[in-house]
Amino acid sequence: MMIMLYGSIEAGGTKFVCAVGDENFNVIDQTQFPTTTPDETLARVIKYFKKFDHIDAFGIASFGPIDVDKDSETYGWIIKTPKKGWSNIDFLGKMKENFDVPMYWTTDVNGSAYGEYISAKKNDESIKSVAYITIGTGIGMGAVINGEFLGVEGTPEFGHIKVKRHRDDLDFKGICPWHGDCLEGVASGPTFEARNGVKGIDTPIVDPTWDIIAYYVAQAVIDLTVTFRPNKVILGGGVCTPDFIAKVRAQFTLLFNNYLNVGSLEKYITAPEIAHNGSATFGDFVLAQKAIDEQKND
Amino acid sequence: MMIMLYGSIEAGGTKFVCAVGDENFNVIDQTQFPTTTPDETLARVIKYFKKFDHIDAFGIASFGPIDVDKDSETYGWIIKTPKKGWSNIDFLGKMKENFDVPMYWTTDVNGSAYGEYISAKKNDESIKSVAYITIGTGIGMGAVINGEFLGVEGTPEFGHIKVKRHRDDLDFKGICPWHGDCLEGVASGPTFEARNGVKGIDTPIVDPTWDIIAYYVAQAVIDLTVTFRPNKVILGGGVCTPDFIAKVRAQFTLLFNNYLNVGSLEKYITAPEIAHNGSATFGDFVLAQKAIDEQKND
Repeated sequence: MMIMLYGSIEAGGTKFVCAVGDENFNVIDQTQFPTTTPDETLARVIKYFKKFDHIDAFGIASFGPIDVDKDSETYGWIIKTPKKGWSNIDFLGKMKENFDVPMYWTTDVNGSAYGEYISAKKNDESIKSVAYITIGTGIGMGAVINGEFLGVEGTPEFGHIKVKRHRDDLDFKGICPWHGDCLEGVASGPTFEARNGVKGIDTPIVDPTWDIIAYYVAQAVIDLTVTFRPNKVILGGGVCTPDFIAKVRAQFTLLFNNYLNVGSLEKYITAPEIAHNGSATFGDFVLAQKAIDEQKND
Repeated sequence: MMIMLYGSIEAGGTKFVCAVGDENFNVIDQTQFPTTTPDETLARVIKYFKKFDHIDAFGIASFGPIDVDKDSETYGWIIKTPKKGWSNIDFLGKMKENFDVPMYWTTDVNGSAYGEYISAKKNDESIKSVAYITIGTGIGMGAVINGEFLGVEGTPEFGHIKVKRHRDDLDFKGICPWHGDCLEGVASGPTFEARNGVKGIDTPIVDPTWDIIAYYVAQAVIDLTVTFRPNKVILGGGVCTPDFIAKVRAQFTLLFNNYLNVGSLEKYITAPEIAHNGSATFGDFVLAQKAIDEQKND
């Protein structure tokens, strides 16, 4: 009997990470390449997976905005995206043309959120929900509640929530092309350079900009806390170093004033458990299995 | 054969509304009384329902914070609440002592949200989720997604999200005892009087305070929109007059900048469909039926 093989596609705006996992969701092969044109990039994806005798199901976690509404005519598409050339691309359709197997289609952050949800649940069965916020070039959020993703009609665009402006940051207009100073406009990675002419990676942790950004991200954590009470809020992406996460906890404490009991803050606001940016790959493998299960139940 | 009778308890901090409905969820009897002490108030509830030969199930939508976690030892309790005398009251336990029938226990806003969800779905089958924000003495939110309430570990406390302060309102500190200028601290009914010494009901609609509050409420609608993309956001409670709702739509348009397509704003941001503050009673009847169904499936 052949072993089961799962395919993972973590489709980012900068790079694609493709991986193959065994029936225990262990990575047995992996590759990555830059995101160029849709034709070229998807051809590389397909060529990569065709190397294997068989792939039994895929989990695909894509940048977007994407269409996740199964009743929609553009389900499985990357829809209007700021990423040049990638608007209105039938990503899932292209995969289905080449592989006649179950596929789970979701957002990039949801893939990571799902991986972290499964991992957290392994360590603590009482976990019912997690939120995953990624802070890098943009800000995204994925949430899993009782095994299901939050957001039925479309993907959340949580980066665009409103925030209370920090008193020392009022002169900064924010960089979101749509909203100026929404969360993404004041707390994403590129806002360091927009404020100070220096990238985040070159900004020492004692610089007050880190505290200002932590003030905004703590508000995002509060919003999620009072909206659906996740058991954990995981902070990923380039901005979320351990030092930064500590600052977010400190701001959360000040701003939330112990209004609800969220337990230990070290456990509540955390870095991803899965090492080496592997959350999405692991999540995709489990979602591939979920796609098989859902097909059986149909 | 006896007809099915459902009991509804809409337990508010100011008054209790109790009602009995038939198998089609029509109100056949109703009463209301002020919320005094727990002993006195719950005795009146029990006495009212004992008048009927039988009540087959209850839907109970209570003020809180309440414990809705079925795995918790204090499930069914009103927990620490600012309402004097009502902290740590085993509301559901008291009901179960007197009526040995299925009961659905949820928050006051969830009861209304569920009623509006069922009603909206009757008119438009494609509806998958609604959010209900109530703005009165406090601010609460309930959401239904695919028939389930949002918030597994506890009730949402959405009134305490952070908001961007309005430029003409920066001197107002807000009235939330925990957070000062969270949403509830700057947009609940009593903030009119706190700002101007005049109650909201006596404040003419041309007063800029209405626009300031609409600016904050529009941010709440945006937060929900980008968090889970409900099909409808219903605005209830004393503050939400038709004129005010029109102002919220206008502020939403300005602030959201058409970032996502939410369809017609008149349909997206609306008053409750169910007349005479009947959303919670209707919702409770349907939840009572749901409690029967869930018991059968256990």
